[in-house]
Amino acid sequence: MTTQAFTGVMSPVLTPFDNDLKPNGRKLAAFCKQLLAEGCTSLSPFGTNSEANSMSVEERIDLLDQIIDSGIDPKKLMPGTGSCALSDAVRASKHATQRGCGGVMVLPPFYYKNMTDDGFYRFFAEMIQRVGDARMKIYLYHIPPQTIQGISLDLIERLIKAYPTTVVGIKDSSGDWKNTEAMLKRFPGFGIFAGSEDFLLANMRGGGVGCITATGNVNAGMIRALYDTWQSPDADAKQAHISSVRKVIQRHPMIPSMKSLRAAWTNDPAWLNVLPPFLPLTMEQGKALAADVAKLGCKGPELVPAQ
Amino acid sequence: MTTQAFTGVMSPVLTPFDNDLKPNGRKLAAFCKQLLAEGCTSLSPFGTNSEANSMSVEERIDLLDQIIDSGIDPKKLMPGTGSCALSDAVRASKHATQRGCGGVMVLPPFYYKNMTDDGFYRFFAEMIQRVGDARMKIYLYHIPPQTIQGISLDLIERLIKAYPTTVVGIKDSSGDWKNTEAMLKRFPGFGIFAGSEDFLLANMRGGGVGCITATGNVNAGMIRALYDTWQSPDADAKQAHISSVRKVIQRHPMIPSMKSLRAAWTNDPAWLNVLPPFLPLTMEQGKALAADVAKLGCKGPELVPAQ
Repeated sequence: MTTQAFTGVMSPVLTPFDNDLKPNGRKLAAFCKQLLAEGCTSLSPFGTNSEANSMSVEERIDLLDQIIDSGIDPKKLMPGTGSCALSDAVRASKHATQRGCGGVMVLPPFYYKNMTDDGFYRFFAEMIQRVGDARMKIYLYHIPPQTIQGISLDLIERLIKAYPTTVVGIKDSSGDWKNTEAMLKRFPGFGIFAGSEDFLLANMRGGGVGCITATGNVNAGMIRALYDTWQSPDADAKQAHISSVRKVIQRHPMIPSMKSLRAAWTNDPAWLNVLPPFLPLTMEQGKALAADVAKLGCKGPELVPAQ
Repeated sequence: MTTQAFTGVMSPVLTPFDNDLKPNGRKLAAFCKQLLAEGCTSLSPFGTNSEANSMSVEERIDLLDQIIDSGIDPKKLMPGTGSCALSDAVRASKHATQRGCGGVMVLPPFYYKNMTDDGFYRFFAEMIQRVGDARMKIYLYHIPPQTIQGISLDLIERLIKAYPTTVVGIKDSSGDWKNTEAMLKRFPGFGIFAGSEDFLLANMRGGGVGCITATGNVNAGMIRALYDTWQSPDADAKQAHISSVRKVIQRHPMIPSMKSLRAAWTNDPAWLNVLPPFLPLTMEQGKALAADVAKLGCKGPELVPAQ
């Protein structure tokens, strides 16, 4: 295991779509800069909350190029490059690595169910060998609520042993703290991110490196403040507070909900656009949500990173 | 609802891969011809058992071109064109339709879970409108064992009402006969395929149009014989017999199992190749399987279609 390439508060960046449902790369690049200004330490475009799997590989590659070409340091980027298709995962991972990205986040193949650890191992091993680039740093993406089958502790151990300088971390989006805790105990030094800020404080106390969280898209400042001061006496109070903000945002399905907040804050109805199978919220819903999170101190673009 | 574009015994065609795991289009085209000779009435390349979602859209489009260019009548083809990504589903469906395919089989987007019927409807509606080709005939693909979330009866009704000449049938791979039965009762005239030959006879008796079944790849002759004579007195005995063959094949995971049979029958070890997350069987396992299905009269390439 190597020095941590990533730590802190990361956001799986929401993808802005135009009214024709095509991704808007210029707007995405600007939004990435905005999130870094709001408090994210680094970014994970093309995660679950980016609607990444609802886009083609070409669309994602083009968007990553636009983000990097806009001037964002690729070392701050950990794009999602997983796919059910080995060839797609290889293509996206190779591209991201060649563009200098600090890491890639890789889902297990998620179409077939009841696969074996051996089969999943084979997928990751083939991917690593086919990319064939020692610069690639893989963060595994454990998210059984969507993939159903996750990445077992035994599989993680096997991958770390076989590829110690490549498989360097994981995002645990199981929503199951016991699983994160078991990983922290079994893999000290592995770059373990909580998949939600709800577990940020517990993860830091257990030796984790931060969180990669959907709500980094709308509440990065507050989450970053907890990260920066997690050893201070008021950390538990801060944790409780950011979790209460998350609860309000979760009133609607997360992706349309966060997009409606961005739409309300910027008065830009195009931010409401989501790809199917999601359905967009309305600007009125976004405004109502904005009013409710504002009561908790979450006010969008006005937020600044903690000092 | 229109006249049935497809009836009978269809196979989701196994995809042959070379040792470097690249799909072999020439071999696939030859295998399609072989399956039609063995008893398949028509074919569904790029289904679950084709490892379709383990390939890129480009790979699938290229393979379809090679199948059609080899001289197979595209009216006999119902390629799988579904994807989590709307843009990919549109691209593959448009290509198949423009190449003259008799239909396309379309999965619901399968990454996100707990989506609404409205969200799924939006996906299919957007896809149909973006393809924008009145020639396209869609067969919905209901396979909750893999996608987890399936296509509800209410959603089917809504799609049929909105697109009566486009949404013309379904493959029910739920493995739940009650669901197929409910569809047969609620949607008379809809092209309903059982997703396994285990339900072929029941489906025909209930007004269905046939089956699209994995084992069409290795036992098409026998399944076709039942289809051709389903109203004869020995139909129940034939059904019991083909189901017993299926049980033997299911001793291993279906895809590697059927590929090992093909490898044994043709003495071609490259047929063992499967993409991860699957693991290949060995030639020895294939030979053992071949011996066991042979005892039940299933002898591979020697099989001829029922007269």
